[in-house]
Amino acid sequence: MTKRKIFVDYASTTPVDPQVIKAMKPYFAKLYGNASSLNDYGVAAKRALEKAREGIAKFMKAEANELVFTGSATEANNLVLKGHALKERKAKCHIAISAIEHSSILESAKWLEDQGYKITYLPVDEYGLLRLNALEEALKENATLVSVVHGNNEIGTIQQIEKIAGLCHEYDTLFHTDAVQSFGKIPISVEKVSIDFMTINAHKLYGPKGIGALYIDNPDSIKPLIHGGGHEFGLRSGTENVPGIVGFAKAVELRMEEMLPEAKRLVQLRDKLIKGILEIKDVHLNGHPTRRLPNNANFRFSYIEGEAIVLALDEEGICASSGSACSSTAGEASHVLLALKLRPEEARGSLRLSLGKYNTERDVNYIIQVMPRVVKRLRAMSILKPSRTKANCIS
Amino acid sequence: MTKRKIFVDYASTTPVDPQVIKAMKPYFAKLYGNASSLNDYGVAAKRALEKAREGIAKFMKAEANELVFTGSATEANNLVLKGHALKERKAKCHIAISAIEHSSILESAKWLEDQGYKITYLPVDEYGLLRLNALEEALKENATLVSVVHGNNEIGTIQQIEKIAGLCHEYDTLFHTDAVQSFGKIPISVEKVSIDFMTINAHKLYGPKGIGALYIDNPDSIKPLIHGGGHEFGLRSGTENVPGIVGFAKAVELRMEEMLPEAKRLVQLRDKLIKGILEIKDVHLNGHPTRRLPNNANFRFSYIEGEAIVLALDEEGICASSGSACSSTAGEASHVLLALKLRPEEARGSLRLSLGKYNTERDVNYIIQVMPRVVKRLRAMSILKPSRTKANCIS
Repeated sequence: MTKRKIFVDYASTTPVDPQVIKAMKPYFAKLYGNASSLNDYGVAAKRALEKAREGIAKFMKAEANELVFTGSATEANNLVLKGHALKERKAKCHIAISAIEHSSILESAKWLEDQGYKITYLPVDEYGLLRLNALEEALKENATLVSVVHGNNEIGTIQQIEKIAGLCHEYDTLFHTDAVQSFGKIPISVEKVSIDFMTINAHKLYGPKGIGALYIDNPDSIKPLIHGGGHEFGLRSGTENVPGIVGFAKAVELRMEEMLPEAKRLVQLRDKLIKGILEIKDVHLNGHPTRRLPNNANFRFSYIEGEAIVLALDEEGICASSGSACSSTAGEASHVLLALKLRPEEARGSLRLSLGKYNTERDVNYIIQVMPRVVKRLRAMSILKPSRTKANCIS
Repeated sequence: MTKRKIFVDYASTTPVDPQVIKAMKPYFAKLYGNASSLNDYGVAAKRALEKAREGIAKFMKAEANELVFTGSATEANNLVLKGHALKERKAKCHIAISAIEHSSILESAKWLEDQGYKITYLPVDEYGLLRLNALEEALKENATLVSVVHGNNEIGTIQQIEKIAGLCHEYDTLFHTDAVQSFGKIPISVEKVSIDFMTINAHKLYGPKGIGALYIDNPDSIKPLIHGGGHEFGLRSGTENVPGIVGFAKAVELRMEEMLPEAKRLVQLRDKLIKGILEIKDVHLNGHPTRRLPNNANFRFSYIEGEAIVLALDEEGICASSGSACSSTAGEASHVLLALKLRPEEARGSLRLSLGKYNTERDVNYIIQVMPRVVKRLRAMSILKPSRTKANCIS
């Protein structure tokens, strides 16, 4: 990678902020103790761990002892669904998830379903908003846990989380939200919205990879998935990744400071990008026109495969993604886009451009300038040309 | 921590080698892509990931696609036991573990037992060596998986792994070894010893915290614990911690280069330390006199609690541990020491001194010089004095 690249794949991951690297550094080679050791090194590590826990908790208006660190958001999402299933009697357990959850929620739910647990998949509307009447039906059918992603990782749609949480609590049902894409980008507080579990991670926030966290309102509402030395209040064993956790806390601190002005800046860039791209013929926006993450733009291009666009943009120095990185190699149409009732060939023609703090208006202008040429070239080569598609849909 | 400290708790964790930090650095803020993304950043991350995987696999004489990265060794240990249990029918599944496994194996086994799985706990002799006749009995009772730690984390005893693996294979039983404490310190190869699963991690090898790995001979012999995007050959979902994995590989590479001369040096220091400490009255060595990890010394001091020694040594600038860091805060006598048939009060009087690459002969001399004074002072204050212990054992 020698020539200048424009990275617009911030929803998949982010570069670690130099200040985060600086905050982590002492914990690699100097204050390297095991936070469970009783000696001085251990005590120093423990102190850093607990300070970081308090820091992150504060920004979501939680108590420090309500935050459990995991090795990833995927693990946190697994923990909440499976930990709930382990806690409840199987006959009583009923988990409802939206149809557009991240693969870590979706696959955990499917796995539980295979084990005989009752799972309900809640539909969304054409913009990805949860259908509240479907939620209410599931609640009436004694759902014990509802899991709905706050800001969707592919299409960026932001759910009406207050309404969803409110409904869940009317029915005394536990509510989890995967806030990996929204935390640090738009305000969310577990105090204001009554949330029982919330997943976040560091590497979407200019923090390190390999560290996530689950907010847990009541530790008795869940069982651990990973057993061992009883770390993290007995809910997630394994030597604490102190540098990673310290970096996570620093990343959250920085995000919270910059959140509101940065969100405003990103919305402007995003809207310019959306406007520019939609000028190309036969291009549509996926997700909600206004209720969307400040940095997310997701389009579908008729007659072209999303992966082909990603590869062609890459040649132009634009690093994007066809959808979730977590399923980019699977070759299947996105379950999120299918849930919007898009046809498989439409779902396959999608491109996600997710902006971040190093993107500028110049980047957006460049993308808008390059895109028509790329799309034209791909369409010229496409076997899905307008004249053929009606008769020859890809299934 | 201002004054000079002697860290002799390398079995709990290690400082990250400066060369490892250097190797990780580009992957934090420059080559920060998501290894599952199709764009240039993703491709570069994926390349680094696979190069690291090959590097580590090579040092254990495995193939790259036999190595699955996890968030910790604890997670890898959970994965092998629970992943096996999920794969086998419950009625057929029978897991035998040694009585001196790390808490992550022991607690996983206990949890499975609670779920109705058959678990056998295999006894060890007074030095911590597995009783092979007990193993053979379990094999005759159709054990489907045997898990025995290679080098014990508390007492340092090195198992007769060739014999154990050989017996398992005579009975077509899968064999797992937790090699977290031994890998990089003494030779071990999954090719030479016929091993089906092996756990390692980075932070015991001067690599970063938050990254472990499980060697898996046959991916069909196990099911995943963490579901999602299907990373790591479908066996462990979650965005790959590329900097951590790159650092892990560098740490392994460095260890392998230095392993043999460093083991020789540590054995000399360890033996000097053992000789010196055993000159104190009523002190005994825990573990095997010769078959022990090069860096491990573990003693029991009559009439004193291990935690009291750790705290007193801390005041003298010596950072040690009373046993496993992973259970140091639990306040119970170590299950490892109890398995050696020590009485609870003996098990509570234990101290682990684990050496590492920054320890020198000067450190050892200092510890030998300080220890008699510390022991004398603690014994003078002890309520477990010789005159009282016979009549007044702590239970």
